[in-house]
Amino acid sequence: MEISLLQKARYAYVPKLPEMLRNGIADISVLEGEETTSAADCEKIKALFPNTYGKREIVFQKGQNTSKTQKQIVGVILSGGQAPGGHNVICGLYDALKSTNPENELYGFKNGPIGLIEDNYIVFNDDYINEYRNTGGFDIIGSGRTKLETNEQFAIVAEVCKKHGITAIVIIGGDDSNTNAAVLAEYFASHNTSVQVIGCPKTIDGDLKNEDIECSFGFDTATKTYSELIGNIARDANSAKKYWHFIKVMGRSASHVALECALETQPNICLISEEVAAKKMSLSQIADYIADSVEKRAAQGMNFGIAIIPEGVVEFVPEFSVLIQEINELLAGSKADAFNALPTWNDKYAYIEKGLTKESMEVFAILPQGIQQQLFLERDPHGNVQVSLIESEKLFSALVKDKLAARKQAGTYNGKFNPIHHFLGYEGRCAFPSNFDSDYCYSLGYNAFMLIQYGYNGYLSKISNLSKPAKEWIAGGMPITKMMNIERRHGEDKPVIKKALVELDSKPFKFFETHRETWAVDTCFVYPGAIQYYGPVEVCDITTKTLALEQN
Amino acid sequence: MEISLLQKARYAYVPKLPEMLRNGIADISVLEGEETTSAADCEKIKALFPNTYGKREIVFQKGQNTSKTQKQIVGVILSGGQAPGGHNVICGLYDALKSTNPENELYGFKNGPIGLIEDNYIVFNDDYINEYRNTGGFDIIGSGRTKLETNEQFAIVAEVCKKHGITAIVIIGGDDSNTNAAVLAEYFASHNTSVQVIGCPKTIDGDLKNEDIECSFGFDTATKTYSELIGNIARDANSAKKYWHFIKVMGRSASHVALECALETQPNICLISEEVAAKKMSLSQIADYIADSVEKRAAQGMNFGIAIIPEGVVEFVPEFSVLIQEINELLAGSKADAFNALPTWNDKYAYIEKGLTKESMEVFAILPQGIQQQLFLERDPHGNVQVSLIESEKLFSALVKDKLAARKQAGTYNGKFNPIHHFLGYEGRCAFPSNFDSDYCYSLGYNAFMLIQYGYNGYLSKISNLSKPAKEWIAGGMPITKMMNIERRHGEDKPVIKKALVELDSKPFKFFETHRETWAVDTCFVYPGAIQYYGPVEVCDITTKTLALEQN
Repeated sequence: MEISLLQKARYAYVPKLPEMLRNGIADISVLEGEETTSAADCEKIKALFPNTYGKREIVFQKGQNTSKTQKQIVGVILSGGQAPGGHNVICGLYDALKSTNPENELYGFKNGPIGLIEDNYIVFNDDYINEYRNTGGFDIIGSGRTKLETNEQFAIVAEVCKKHGITAIVIIGGDDSNTNAAVLAEYFASHNTSVQVIGCPKTIDGDLKNEDIECSFGFDTATKTYSELIGNIARDANSAKKYWHFIKVMGRSASHVALECALETQPNICLISEEVAAKKMSLSQIADYIADSVEKRAAQGMNFGIAIIPEGVVEFVPEFSVLIQEINELLAGSKADAFNALPTWNDKYAYIEKGLTKESMEVFAILPQGIQQQLFLERDPHGNVQVSLIESEKLFSALVKDKLAARKQAGTYNGKFNPIHHFLGYEGRCAFPSNFDSDYCYSLGYNAFMLIQYGYNGYLSKISNLSKPAKEWIAGGMPITKMMNIERRHGEDKPVIKKALVELDSKPFKFFETHRETWAVDTCFVYPGAIQYYGPVEVCDITTKTLALEQN
Repeated sequence: MEISLLQKARYAYVPKLPEMLRNGIADISVLEGEETTSAADCEKIKALFPNTYGKREIVFQKGQNTSKTQKQIVGVILSGGQAPGGHNVICGLYDALKSTNPENELYGFKNGPIGLIEDNYIVFNDDYINEYRNTGGFDIIGSGRTKLETNEQFAIVAEVCKKHGITAIVIIGGDDSNTNAAVLAEYFASHNTSVQVIGCPKTIDGDLKNEDIECSFGFDTATKTYSELIGNIARDANSAKKYWHFIKVMGRSASHVALECALETQPNICLISEEVAAKKMSLSQIADYIADSVEKRAAQGMNFGIAIIPEGVVEFVPEFSVLIQEINELLAGSKADAFNALPTWNDKYAYIEKGLTKESMEVFAILPQGIQQQLFLERDPHGNVQVSLIESEKLFSALVKDKLAARKQAGTYNGKFNPIHHFLGYEGRCAFPSNFDSDYCYSLGYNAFMLIQYGYNGYLSKISNLSKPAKEWIAGGMPITKMMNIERRHGEDKPVIKKALVELDSKPFKFFETHRETWAVDTCFVYPGAIQYYGPVEVCDITTKTLALEQN
């Protein structure tokens, strides 16, 4: 099999562990902290997790090993969307497991949680593992989006574990997957299976973050890759001086990715979905906000710029959400047939005009025709509008164009506006992990095994102090229940890990807020360039601006 | 001004020069070669370039400097689309000029050739130059697409040169700009102005290439950036195992970029425009070719893949070109008004059906409706179809979808086909130049000054032996007229540098052809990762596979 020169070189990279893990199990002891309580809804969470609730946070330190000597057979799964570093979690887990006892075994269940149900696995060995060290992707065993959440599924998983003698399962996933890890841990505990469950925090979206998780893995590499590209595009804009680039970046529900990219590249505009929601901004207001920047720059002869648009932003515009609900109503059930039978778009438009409230019709009327038609014609199998298909980068550039035409008429604007559109998503999820993610992920996996070895169940592998060099990182574990609260999901009260949205009083947002007026008018672009794995430490090992601002 | 950590680190990079240039002018002498003749149409070219035709190729070597001692005032322009390394050409030129004589001066004319007409310039100094060393972009002085080609323009340029005492102009551009450089050189020679003109070969497209230009600058960095992203997307495809990614890459008239990316990443499919033209492939044949790969992979349970589409490919499909011509005819002049007056798309479709030949209607009929409408509704100011706006990645995925639906009906295919679309262009044109492009460009600029110092006019700065380490590169100059032939352009015979298309008997294409059947069915993806500027030499300093195959 042919591999790239970089991949070959990366095989030789030795990820950096926190100091207290560097000598392996022989030199690792446990410091127990306080008993924990959940983030909110303590009584309800406690009732749901009678066996795993209230456990103590633990920190590893140098000292005499007191863990049980027991052959460990561990299963691992990758869950959900790819994030750079997933392979290193597994490599760290494998190395810790084998160096603790060469008899230990690591099973990789394939294609996500479904692998545990289907009993579809491989048993890792050195040759296999070595091909994946410090590489991107989840192709080592594949990933998937099946959810492990029902007792029927858990019973099957318990059977599979019993069959192979599995002593612990490591679940590498996002907030939902780690929530499910906690539920599975409780199931195992309440059924006396003695199988342990450990979670590892993964997601490029950065929304699995709280006082115990400084950041999820993959966020660093993905935002560095997007920032490389945004910087390159910005430099192109500043060279050609004739295009406005509207760049949509991945992140459906939180704008951490957009914000980090903005902090790295200093674009003229960056929308933050959480701010749009908090300020109840309308599409028209957002378009005016962008048009203001276009106008002011044009007045200085700069008919070019960069606008970063978070993927999910339109879902945060209150009036737009109302419009979507009304459209779903308007076409519910058999009403869709009547609509579809109308011969021309003009007929359909008249039908829509009659069916929507005046307020929603006003919103609908300003949309570009392509998006109007998309809303009505490309619905999902349940007949619902597919908001995620809306190309919001094109939507906003079209709305801005309309605003500018009006301003030109009014005589306040006399520039040129040529928009170009981009979407950055798949380009960053499987990049070779940065040194930070390589080290962090390897440490998460290595540490996960130490939690297993010490008998913990329902814990999240926790590595903290991340803005410092790896040597100073702190390794330990936190009961997942500590991060949970009760939320309404699909009409049911569910115990879940709270999704971390961008907080408008956080230091990263405040920093952005302080500078964005200058960035909107002047050309302050910063060009981060490609991720570097070798060379000066300050170029290669520093993690995100978000974390630097949060921890300072 | 805030700059990135990488940019700061790159300022310290010292580009590598060919051995014979390393001690500067004091140690550089000239070895003259044979008199040259043009690539074709010798008599016609000779007649058009009486003063600059037939000059000798020259090579620099270590030896006694015999150049004239004269204060040099040099002007430089960047012409056309951005390519990584343009800044380094100017830095090399500046360093050579200043180290030869600190009194020498370098003028940078702004925003492309128009800067010479408008006399819009800056005079470089150390502080200014140092901010651009080893950086991407053309923002040092901007670029532009105005063409310098008329005698009226040349007369203005001569006046501007006289005003500032300019002794030479360096034009950094593609095939057209270097053609114009030759014409300007002849103008200066025939008007006894004594101003010299030197060209430098720039373009990420890779189509400015011949026996004297081993590659144009920027091609290495741009294709490495695209390959990084294609590799990342491929790894994502191989992890998620559920998407076919259709990735369009820049390159209107030649497919060098697509081919190089294919050699780097080993996708399942890569279309080569020149092959499509040579084999007179139809849209339907191309779609079948892609669908064959989808089908064979699906049969092995692999419902994912990567297809690289060169930006200009549809223009190379003979039947499609005919269709475009017919549409332009159909809507020429006042006929467009009649068409536009038709109330609905159905009416318009009927009109089209009546107006096109049967053959073209067959081609038109298989297009997705969105593209049908685009062809008729989004015409340029002259009423012509805008072929460049056609999203060929979406066109081909739609055609493949239709093919697969038919195959499903026929029972030969039973997979899932979920396409995702990408366009890679602006992401790569302004990346930080790779070490290769940093070195090559710096050498081109440094060498350009040596050609000036030795009094050459109408020469291209030539650096060769590029697949070897920089030390072994050979510096010299070639009369631009040697690369010229006569071509029909816009109804006129013009002397031009021949555009280099992908040759189907070239080693890079042959290599691709030998492997593509395997790549189409198996998963042979290679993941090049981000450009590295530090670290192992084999990761940092190697140029393209194309050049390696061409030079063995």
